[in-house]
Amino acid sequence: MHFDHAGIATDDAATLAALYRDLLDAPIAHEERFDGLDVVFLELDGGYFELLEPTADADGAIAGYLADHGPGIHHLAVATDDIEDALAAARSAGVDLIDEEPRPGAWGHDVAFLHPRSTGGVLLEFVEH
Amino acid sequence: MHFDHAGIATDDAATLAALYRDLLDAPIAHEERFDGLDVVFLELDGGYFELLEPTADADGAIAGYLADHGPGIHHLAVATDDIEDALAAARSAGVDLIDEEPRPGAWGHDVAFLHPRSTGGVLLEFVEH
Repeated sequence: MHFDHAGIATDDAATLAALYRDLLDAPIAHEERFDGLDVVFLELDGGYFELLEPTADADGAIAGYLADHGPGIHHLAVATDDIEDALAAARSAGVDLIDEEPRPGAWGHDVAFLHPRSTGGVLLEFVEH
Repeated sequence: MHFDHAGIATDDAATLAALYRDLLDAPIAHEERFDGLDVVFLELDGGYFELLEPTADADGAIAGYLADHGPGIHHLAVATDDIEDALAAARSAGVDLIDEEPRPGAWGHDVAFLHPRSTGGVLLEFVEH
């Protein structure tokens, strides 16, 4: 497995993308509107920062996170060649899954989230490109 | 610059390291006691997860984070070949610095943190190996 991205909840992805481009030499690798979010992937050697901004009328998980916590680091994603196998291993290890099966994520990837109560308070995502 | 690690605050680094080894194929790359913390670096392709557990008598930033937020993702670190230059660029961009100058960090690296109020709520660390 390899590090894929850190997901960052923000209420202004465009401004944050411009700052991180200057600060971290992290250019925009991909942008899309997906599932009530404006999503911007910034490319670093070794992985991505994924900026997640809810659209105006969104009431999903990121909007809730921003309301409760304000902007900040939301999750960590690890890439695998076989997400079904990774989920089966997690299940065997007694980890609570948010997604019992992979589902379509941003950038055309398959994703599944593990529950932070099982993973040291860290919201972990498996992603298969 | 390249992704270096995600820092994770925990009250039980040994248990979390064992879980992440099984779940993420992330072996222990380095362990040390540093600055009131038991620090464990887990290696993924592309970067590390840095587990940070305060020692019993510690009252530093991680102990405070655990008391306020519970365990979870604490910071993101980006590696640079020239941390002085990276800090100068951050200063020029109007970013508030926690560390005006690099200081010794875990694993013998030089580190400096940027204030999350300037970086979209994300505690960012520059690290030079």
